[in-house]
Amino acid sequence: MNYTLLRSLSRPRLASWALRRFIATKNVVPDPMTGELMPPTPDIQPNLLQITRNANPGTPPPSKTLVFGHTFTDHMLTIPWDAVSGWGVPEIKPYGPLQMEPSATVLHYAQTLFEGMKAYRDETGKVTLFRPDMNMKRMNNSARRLALPTFNGDAFLDLIKRLISIDKHWIPQEPGHSLYVRPTLIGTQKAIGVGPPNEALLFVILSPVGPYYASGFKPVALYGTTEFVRAAPGGTGAYKLGVNYAPGVLPQKSVAALGYSQNLWLHGPDHQLTEVGTMNMFVVFKTKDGALELVTPPLDGMILPGVTRDSVLTLAREHINGVKTLADLPENLIVSERTVTMKEVKEAAQEQRLVEMFGAGTAAVISPVDRIGYMGQDVHIPTGADGMGPVSRPIWTELVGRQWGKIPSEWSVVVE
Amino acid sequence: MNYTLLRSLSRPRLASWALRRFIATKNVVPDPMTGELMPPTPDIQPNLLQITRNANPGTPPPSKTLVFGHTFTDHMLTIPWDAVSGWGVPEIKPYGPLQMEPSATVLHYAQTLFEGMKAYRDETGKVTLFRPDMNMKRMNNSARRLALPTFNGDAFLDLIKRLISIDKHWIPQEPGHSLYVRPTLIGTQKAIGVGPPNEALLFVILSPVGPYYASGFKPVALYGTTEFVRAAPGGTGAYKLGVNYAPGVLPQKSVAALGYSQNLWLHGPDHQLTEVGTMNMFVVFKTKDGALELVTPPLDGMILPGVTRDSVLTLAREHINGVKTLADLPENLIVSERTVTMKEVKEAAQEQRLVEMFGAGTAAVISPVDRIGYMGQDVHIPTGADGMGPVSRPIWTELVGRQWGKIPSEWSVVVE
Repeated sequence: MNYTLLRSLSRPRLASWALRRFIATKNVVPDPMTGELMPPTPDIQPNLLQITRNANPGTPPPSKTLVFGHTFTDHMLTIPWDAVSGWGVPEIKPYGPLQMEPSATVLHYAQTLFEGMKAYRDETGKVTLFRPDMNMKRMNNSARRLALPTFNGDAFLDLIKRLISIDKHWIPQEPGHSLYVRPTLIGTQKAIGVGPPNEALLFVILSPVGPYYASGFKPVALYGTTEFVRAAPGGTGAYKLGVNYAPGVLPQKSVAALGYSQNLWLHGPDHQLTEVGTMNMFVVFKTKDGALELVTPPLDGMILPGVTRDSVLTLAREHINGVKTLADLPENLIVSERTVTMKEVKEAAQEQRLVEMFGAGTAAVISPVDRIGYMGQDVHIPTGADGMGPVSRPIWTELVGRQWGKIPSEWSVVVE
Repeated sequence: MNYTLLRSLSRPRLASWALRRFIATKNVVPDPMTGELMPPTPDIQPNLLQITRNANPGTPPPSKTLVFGHTFTDHMLTIPWDAVSGWGVPEIKPYGPLQMEPSATVLHYAQTLFEGMKAYRDETGKVTLFRPDMNMKRMNNSARRLALPTFNGDAFLDLIKRLISIDKHWIPQEPGHSLYVRPTLIGTQKAIGVGPPNEALLFVILSPVGPYYASGFKPVALYGTTEFVRAAPGGTGAYKLGVNYAPGVLPQKSVAALGYSQNLWLHGPDHQLTEVGTMNMFVVFKTKDGALELVTPPLDGMILPGVTRDSVLTLAREHINGVKTLADLPENLIVSERTVTMKEVKEAAQEQRLVEMFGAGTAAVISPVDRIGYMGQDVHIPTGADGMGPVSRPIWTELVGRQWGKIPSEWSVVVE
């Protein structure tokens, strides 16, 4: 029985028991994309890791001078993949240029996806990552969406930890600082046909970063954008792909010229709020019977399933359920994943029921909003003296407490 | 008067005469994106060209063995750009890997755009490009959309001609063969902030290609796709950007598994036909009073303004207007840029008024369609014995006649 025959059998018509039985006895796996049966190729193998130390290590710059994503550490991790041999030898080696064929598909067709994570060092010197399993899962989902190879997330995470461990002295000492971890997967096929690439490269680079808000929270002004879209139904908004980022630069510049910081991406004829710049978005309303409702748009295919988004929702729900009550977070809190429209936001503002609004993401954690430019008018949003609001403040405190290792939690994963 | 002040003046409120006057007397230009006044940086300067000949030139492979985009010629053209110095020294040098920083923004945020052109060699040995001005114009539009630098299209085209001229022996001798020309512009900023890159690279590679249909036209089957989208209103479908390509691979694989070749991208609740795979799309109906109507969707922001699309429309209109009558093309022809829905296509098929359907693009020129899988049924489309239809056949004949240099036209631009 050859693979061609197997492929023809792997249509829905084939009784699934026969397929499962064949998979169990022969060493083949269904292709995650097409369901075709394929001989398996090796997954990522941390035991093959080769380490080449940087002979000319750099000196971490003064933390004050750090600009997001401009400084990189001494080493990087690379893991090549090809369709025949699967995942190859992982290497930790000096940070430096990649040799890239000019025909590499990433350069032409945007076959790229990435993750953003942070490694924190607590006062005892312990280094931790925050919920890295979420990033591994999402990265594999992104890879499937682009027909790029998937991998064992635990094996990749092992290697990321090895890299961080080697460069951990690059994590600034100052509170609120961290090491931004950027895993990236690109298609590197040396031929410009549009299709699943036969070669790919997974790599990780590390960048020391300061706190997003160096001197207290600065609420930002958004512009309700309708002439450009970040995502659409049937598109790629729910995946962390490069393609969701390049097209957002021009819209951001266009609102910056009007005096706003970021786009508030509005969807559909009823102007549903979806995301803010490159962050997820939360609004807090006072309901007509006096409760507080924390609202974020549902994961309907257009919204990125953000780690910070999920963490905010989880903390709020655990507060309500009594799993862990957060100091100063109101008791009468409702958590909703539902559609919010600009009409609702405007009405709440007029009725003094708009309590706060914020973006949520790995880079800024929580980013308060104090104004939305919309249809020629500004909707103003309350912020406290510290820039935050009654719901975001206690949630932020708990979240960064966990991230910085001051509050023990299962979300912190130690880097040995 | 400094630039900061100038920028504050460059808002719409400033009387435009003052702005124009200032621009005329001082050496500043409005930024094409923001309207801010900036000191001009150098445009592409062909006179600075440096040529390094490949010391180990390759041998063009037998034309029969060519697979699209797998073989590249001996040389490539590169032109670097940075925000301070503008366009730098153009180089023609041996084809080979680019040194790419792992932080280069193209690898993370998909800051890439490209063009596809073909160079043809006629029987007398003369090498021509087909309407390259259209590609230069579109490439600059794409660059503006991604906040990448724009350039003088004539200057760039001069350099592309120099490159083709050096590698013209790579154009296969056989009829219907050509040299595929791939200009690409990527953001290469060495920092992973999302914004207009401060560095970019424009490069051109050349690939000898055979005819898309080596042994006569093979009509393809399409699948009417609604669960994935290629483009959306407010998105980037009207620009030739990398971001429009990577997300299409999975949808293509998913319809291939069902026995169809390509996606027919349907938009909106009424299932408007937009594009076919990576091509523009045409349908021919017989109208109720017996005329033939050639229809393609309008350039409404979701449709790529294809060079082949425009050429098909122009030839058909010139036929109708009597500028140049094409042999065998019906006289009672109507040309429409308008929305077409699947309902209309199905009804026309039922009433025997569906005459033909085809994709149009640089790679295939004309690609006939004989079937659309739609909502669980197949809509069948007539094709002639040669695979083509009564409208596409005479238009294709004229079009490739002009491309191959058999029919003189202004669309052919000679490479010296």
